[in-house]
Amino acid sequence: MAKIEKVSPLAPASFPDIPAIKGVKFLTASAGLKYQGRSDVMLAILDPGTEIAGVFTSSSTRSSAVIDCEEKIHLKHSSSGAAIVVNSGNANAFTGSRGKVSVEAITSTVAEVLNIPRSRVFSSSTGVIGEELPHSLIIDALRKMVADKSTQDILEAAKAIMTTDTYPKGSVRKVLTDQGEITIVGIAKGSGMIAPNMATMLVYLFTDASVKKDALQSYLSKINERTFNSISVDGDTSTSDTVLIAATGKSGIRIEKNDKNFSQGLVSLMTDLAHQVVKDGEGASKFVEINIFNARNNTDAKAHAKSIANSPLVKTAIAGEDPNWGRIVMAIGKSGAQAERDKIKIFFGDILVAEDGWVAPNYSEELGAQYMKNTTIKISVDLGLGVANTTFWTCDFTNDYISINADYRS
Amino acid sequence: MAKIEKVSPLAPASFPDIPAIKGVKFLTASAGLKYQGRSDVMLAILDPGTEIAGVFTSSSTRSSAVIDCEEKIHLKHSSSGAAIVVNSGNANAFTGSRGKVSVEAITSTVAEVLNIPRSRVFSSSTGVIGEELPHSLIIDALRKMVADKSTQDILEAAKAIMTTDTYPKGSVRKVLTDQGEITIVGIAKGSGMIAPNMATMLVYLFTDASVKKDALQSYLSKINERTFNSISVDGDTSTSDTVLIAATGKSGIRIEKNDKNFSQGLVSLMTDLAHQVVKDGEGASKFVEINIFNARNNTDAKAHAKSIANSPLVKTAIAGEDPNWGRIVMAIGKSGAQAERDKIKIFFGDILVAEDGWVAPNYSEELGAQYMKNTTIKISVDLGLGVANTTFWTCDFTNDYISINADYRS
Repeated sequence: MAKIEKVSPLAPASFPDIPAIKGVKFLTASAGLKYQGRSDVMLAILDPGTEIAGVFTSSSTRSSAVIDCEEKIHLKHSSSGAAIVVNSGNANAFTGSRGKVSVEAITSTVAEVLNIPRSRVFSSSTGVIGEELPHSLIIDALRKMVADKSTQDILEAAKAIMTTDTYPKGSVRKVLTDQGEITIVGIAKGSGMIAPNMATMLVYLFTDASVKKDALQSYLSKINERTFNSISVDGDTSTSDTVLIAATGKSGIRIEKNDKNFSQGLVSLMTDLAHQVVKDGEGASKFVEINIFNARNNTDAKAHAKSIANSPLVKTAIAGEDPNWGRIVMAIGKSGAQAERDKIKIFFGDILVAEDGWVAPNYSEELGAQYMKNTTIKISVDLGLGVANTTFWTCDFTNDYISINADYRS
Repeated sequence: MAKIEKVSPLAPASFPDIPAIKGVKFLTASAGLKYQGRSDVMLAILDPGTEIAGVFTSSSTRSSAVIDCEEKIHLKHSSSGAAIVVNSGNANAFTGSRGKVSVEAITSTVAEVLNIPRSRVFSSSTGVIGEELPHSLIIDALRKMVADKSTQDILEAAKAIMTTDTYPKGSVRKVLTDQGEITIVGIAKGSGMIAPNMATMLVYLFTDASVKKDALQSYLSKINERTFNSISVDGDTSTSDTVLIAATGKSGIRIEKNDKNFSQGLVSLMTDLAHQVVKDGEGASKFVEINIFNARNNTDAKAHAKSIANSPLVKTAIAGEDPNWGRIVMAIGKSGAQAERDKIKIFFGDILVAEDGWVAPNYSEELGAQYMKNTTIKISVDLGLGVANTTFWTCDFTNDYISINADYRS
């Protein structure tokens, strides 16, 4: 089985044109951790006054970098600068007490060279689990890149955090407020081990808006639930998932809690990045949107959506362009959430496939088979039980997924 | 993508030599439901005095045959005979009100031709979901096979219930009691949509012991939990899963509740059949045993075991013979059950792989890689938190799984 090197067929045509955010500088370097001939360390330098919020993996075996971020994220801080440092190629997860040593060594170095407190340096590591991180390589690279002062654009930052990703992921939204325009930008990585409750997914968001720490955390946690926590590639959850948002305030425009425009802009940006992560799902050939309507409650809605999204039988049927709606019935049935057979309606796009506990009278296999040829597949299920709705995104399950993952380390 | 026709490399060398059970007769026929040139209807005729117990899928979208069985299984009954009728090729699941009509038509026909009450006829259907069952084909076949009176051995019965199975599954155990020897035999089918809480799995067990109905149900429910509810192929749960046990009593030997010998015999038989189902997992190339030791409680133990067993990343690593224990750490972390990183011990067979939150000092990648070449892979996890243990069985996840399932219906 050989590694698949081609770019995902679902990749966007090009990386978007993302403007610089005042108060954020990116540096990248090649520390040679795993990959040759590409950058694998990214440093984002954040000006004094920046507020940072974050959400992290729920895994009980989460990495030392995640634990370190969690400890720092809610600390009160002076108006010093801050930094985010990320390496790809090694996750520094399940590396015992050495894991913590590496995190401290890296964040201390960043703190020293940028002259900021270590409590303001957030780090992430992504890649293989269980192998000691050769952090001296990263430290050497960090010292050199800061001495060189050659800043990069955000595209280079997006590239430096990639692992099995086949394309860099970035997005930008402009939000008009009463006081003027602010900008939110973001980069993401992640193509395997993607599941709700955070994935092998690293996401860094930056805005020039001025947002108080509590409000920033509230926006992030709430919107994360319906964006990055509503996607899945394989149902596996990483030890390292991290989403950080940094608000530099350099636009001079203050965003308060519950600002509709800011919220909408952030939802749109995070949804875009979440879709880009799914579209780079290992081996993906189809992008799948699952809508659950009229579930008894939100928990049930998400349970049904996840059960469909994570079912290998549903995902392989989609890969084979087989309108096998019986497998959707199976996935609803096994979810553990409430469903009544004869109230369920199933749709492919706008096509009513099943109702009254059976195939719909006007549905034909040809209609379904034709629909399945699309690259984006929308599956909707109306449970007819309550008023809770949810949307979830995933990809199909192809031979390439197996090939990529059966020899990831070889 | 082409259907894989080869026999599973994990198949036993041959079907076991299974003696006839007094009071049980098998008939089979080709009704031509889906498959050509093979039998697809099985009828087991059970003598008067037979007690029957059953366990069924927990799916909320379970089939009409399952609902019909559930309604009958706890009914009091006269000493009339009984029957089990099974068809393969069509699951008669999610077929609306027609589903029930088909079940009634089939069970009524069996009741009529065998002159037994319809309440003593148990039926199962397995195959594609959502397509109307052409039950008249089955009824014609049933009338003909009963008129012909040409009984078959249990191997033919095992063959008639197969769908994507690559080999027939059967087992036998003899149990010595104070009063003499009794025999328990069984057949099973199922190779995809296999998951705990019952799978696309049909299992029929027969014994010449005399066991009261309540005791029989108690044995079955209890042992089912640690056998058929402790296996998984793809984590998907079928709408049709059924395990029935029929005790004809023809040996004249009475088995009471909590008989150790009978219980051990039944555990051994059901474990054997459960393993055979896993070993015919679609595309399987490795048989995987997962042992969880010292979990906080049984629920946690099973949650960890299932999380490892159902993880696509663990299963693909095993397919690739990659000793990627980091993915086991990930699966423990995402299970939702309690784990403390630094207390976890992970073993491949007898090889200690990880402890104290990291790779074990004496472990080497070469040791792990060598172990992964085995056909049977044992993964053990000691959580060091309590005294609850569990064992779970699954198979690996190969390209063939995708190929089989991406065009099951084409």
